[in-house]
Amino acid sequence: MANELTHLDEKGQARMVDVSAKDHTEREARAMAVINMLPQTLAMIAQGKHKKGDVLATARIAGIMAAKRTPDIIPMCHPLLLTSVKVELTPNFENNSVEIIAICKLVGQTGVEMEALTAATAAALTLYDMCKAVDKGMVIDQVQLLEKKGGKSGHWLRTGDQV
Amino acid sequence: MANELTHLDEKGQARMVDVSAKDHTEREARAMAVINMLPQTLAMIAQGKHKKGDVLATARIAGIMAAKRTPDIIPMCHPLLLTSVKVELTPNFENNSVEIIAICKLVGQTGVEMEALTAATAAALTLYDMCKAVDKGMVIDQVQLLEKKGGKSGHWLRTGDQV
Amino acid sequence: MANELTHLDEKGQARMVDVSAKDHTEREARAMAVINMLPQTLAMIAQGKHKKGDVLATARIAGIMAAKRTPDIIPMCHPLLLTSVKVELTPNFENNSVEIIAICKLVGQTGVEMEALTAATAAALTLYDMCKAVDKGMVIDQVQLLEKKGGKSGHWLRTGDQV
Amino acid sequence: MANELTHLDEKGQARMVDVSAKDHTEREARAMAVINMLPQTLAMIAQGKHKKGDVLATARIAGIMAAKRTPDIIPMCHPLLLTSVKVELTPNFENNSVEIIAICKLVGQTGVEMEALTAATAAALTLYDMCKAVDKGMVIDQVQLLEKKGGKSGHWLRTGDQV
Amino acid sequence: MANELTHLDEKGQARMVDVSAKDHTEREARAMAVINMLPQTLAMIAQGKHKKGDVLATARIAGIMAAKRTPDIIPMCHPLLLTSVKVELTPNFENNSVEIIAICKLVGQTGVEMEALTAATAAALTLYDMCKAVDKGMVIDQVQLLEKKGGKSGHWLRTGDQV
Amino acid sequence: MANELTHLDEKGQARMVDVSAKDHTEREARAMAVINMLPQTLAMIAQGKHKKGDVLATARIAGIMAAKRTPDIIPMCHPLLLTSVKVELTPNFENNSVEIIAICKLVGQTGVEMEALTAATAAALTLYDMCKAVDKGMVIDQVQLLEKKGGKSGHWLRTGDQV
Repeated sequence: MANELTHLDEKGQARMVDVSAKDHTEREARAMAVINMLPQTLAMIAQGKHKKGDVLATARIAGIMAAKRTPDIIPMCHPLLLTSVKVELTPNFENNSVEIIAICKLVGQTGVEMEALTAATAAALTLYDMCKAVDKGMVIDQVQLLEKKGGKSGHWLRTGDQV
Repeated sequence: MANELTHLDEKGQARMVDVSAKDHTEREARAMAVINMLPQTLAMIAQGKHKKGDVLATARIAGIMAAKRTPDIIPMCHPLLLTSVKVELTPNFENNSVEIIAICKLVGQTGVEMEALTAATAAALTLYDMCKAVDKGMVIDQVQLLEKKGGKSGHWLRTGDQV
Repeated sequence: MANELTHLDEKGQARMVDVSAKDHTEREARAMAVINMLPQTLAMIAQGKHKKGDVLATARIAGIMAAKRTPDIIPMCHPLLLTSVKVELTPNFENNSVEIIAICKLVGQTGVEMEALTAATAAALTLYDMCKAVDKGMVIDQVQLLEKKGGKSGHWLRTGDQV
Repeated sequence: MANELTHLDEKGQARMVDVSAKDHTEREARAMAVINMLPQTLAMIAQGKHKKGDVLATARIAGIMAAKRTPDIIPMCHPLLLTSVKVELTPNFENNSVEIIAICKLVGQTGVEMEALTAATAAALTLYDMCKAVDKGMVIDQVQLLEKKGGKSGHWLRTGDQV
Repeated sequence: MANELTHLDEKGQARMVDVSAKDHTEREARAMAVINMLPQTLAMIAQGKHKKGDVLATARIAGIMAAKRTPDIIPMCHPLLLTSVKVELTPNFENNSVEIIAICKLVGQTGVEMEALTAATAAALTLYDMCKAVDKGMVIDQVQLLEKKGGKSGHWLRTGDQV
Repeated sequence: MANELTHLDEKGQARMVDVSAKDHTEREARAMAVINMLPQTLAMIAQGKHKKGDVLATARIAGIMAAKRTPDIIPMCHPLLLTSVKVELTPNFENNSVEIIAICKLVGQTGVEMEALTAATAAALTLYDMCKAVDKGMVIDQVQLLEKKGGKSGHWLRTGDQV
């Protein structure tokens, strides 16, 4: 990896990095987030009377829409043309949590890590919003990049060695 | 707390909850997020040659601006008139992390928990973005509400008993 | 009703009407839209293998979110604080259509007719988008205000006498 | 046409369709909307004292701007780079209506049907907003795609056989 | 006036100032901008073949819409509920310029100076955009607050003594 | 230069110009703005107790983010994929002003003059906002394009001959 913060110039001032000379390549990023909750909250979302309810659908759609808003939210992100966004939410009854995976793709000059992270986070925040009337103590955890493909820096896969 | 997901109607369909009859009261919410990183990444942000750099300022501003965008990002959130937003970022050299606290205030009919959580999260994501060239393995953790004041449900303070 | 286009000044120039002196009253608007489609398209949405699918949920959420974006889309609309938004989508198998009803509420100085109309329309356009791969000929019809309560002009209910 | 709703995955969950492998081709879409009104409303817009007024201009500009906001409004729409947007509004004194045609172009991987439909609809809603003080009964009708060129599915032209 | 930059805390960090305790009062701000151009550019806008053209209308509408977007553009601005926005554009043939006046009103807890300045500026930038094909040298000047009413700091009127 | 306002059609109606047939070339624009203030205001920003404060950082970030919002603010601007944005703010103690330079780059079909002008202006407005509590009389001046490269019209450099 680089040993410089590329989003700062030599004076330490923020800038949108110049990617004009970068190749247009196919890029993909996969990120995750987990939201932990009370068992009864998970039960309300995933089974019982609201089984067919809109909770997971709302979070999924929020994640997809947030991916598109990433350059509005993250100041130094380039605007870009996402070619694919998927957000999967999987209830985990052992851990009383919902696990969220977001996958973004692009053919372009910059990576889509921030888009995938933003999608996963927005989906998790939306779950919090939908359930906060019954469980204000929910905690979002493990928001992290899992894998990244394409671009000059190539393939990156999370291993046990990272933070 | 309620024992119903208020954001769903009796058919399980998402709705923006009707708050027309709620009082306009002063409300406040305090939320946090933590971003864990390599020691050398933290050093780059917080000391050394980029000491005066824009990294923390950019994250702080991103958090404040994201608080205002909450109803655009979280589908069932009401639009509201934030009267105060503060985002504090504190490097923690023992844990190799930056701790983020966001505080939002409002005089209105709905709480500002989602605004505070969105602000903290956006600040954390912005730190990730600013540093990802040197440390893709950073992990955002402990995104949670710490305290909430005002409104019908009254005071709520995180204790050890929650998730 | 008025006999002047209030959104134009005496020179015919567009303006955002001054509502500073208007009372804060509870207001409500109900609007509809219909989207007509092939029988097999309706079947795909409402029954059969995608019965549990996200099509109607996506349209419902799009409508709710679009209501909040109304002042960004309709140039002379005032920003306002919606206190409630509901969007109902009902398949009509006799007419091969989906009927959409949107209800918006507010305690404020301006009506919410545009918000209800925008919500109904965005839900209809989203249905078009979700189904256009199988049915490009769908037609959106009958986008209209059904009822309006509150404000100086008072109650208005669609009757057979209007356009 | 396809016999599947491409915006849903095999589980019926909404996704932004993956267009990464699609060719960049020139694409064009033409859509329409009609807004029906009282004769005196049409007269106010199109002739008489407000002949030079901003009503039609405001609707035209709203349509053009809304075309650019399409991916913010329609959840599964890809962000894209419109290369041309035109919105034409034509008063029809026989039918007491204004007919709206929107044409969008793009060189890219996805079609621009939704952009053209969104532009036509936003222009119609803006006309409603500008005139609602004098005519709340206006009805928007015939929101539909007229023609589509380019892309893998090729040329599509509305005929009498559709819905 | 204050002798402190209220948008910074005691550590020099940006914040959205806390206005929770401020009164809701009627507030108004009037701001201006001037755009200077070649005589033939002004002639194209204001007379001759494009006399009925949309140039001034587009700039006026852009100004009104930008006023509503102010909290999205200016990081520390509070979201607020504008009750009135007017933008006037007056060709000045002596100075080869267009003079722009924007007036914003609100009943609320914060002033609307930034909204009026943003409206005037956006209108001027839009004129630049509409005419840049024929006159890239246009210069925007004298962007300034003219008057401010309401709020704790009371009436402020530009005099010859300011910058 | 052209002798027509390209953003109007033959009837004088606004349109987003068709650039479908234009080449994708590297383009760059450099624009400036100046904000004049009282000496003590400049001192507060640039030296003394707030030397390390966020004022200039906030303005810089606002400028970069506004560049990305240009097509939302300027009605006829095409959406585009900025590949680089830089905003420099330089205190000028002789003139009691801050000089702002914004540079935008793109590989695409349209120029980025409006993005550079919008970035410079938003940075200037943000400085106004951050300092208005102490100096309401600040004036923004000399908002202008300095240089433009790339595209069919080629190189353009401001000289003494323009407005």
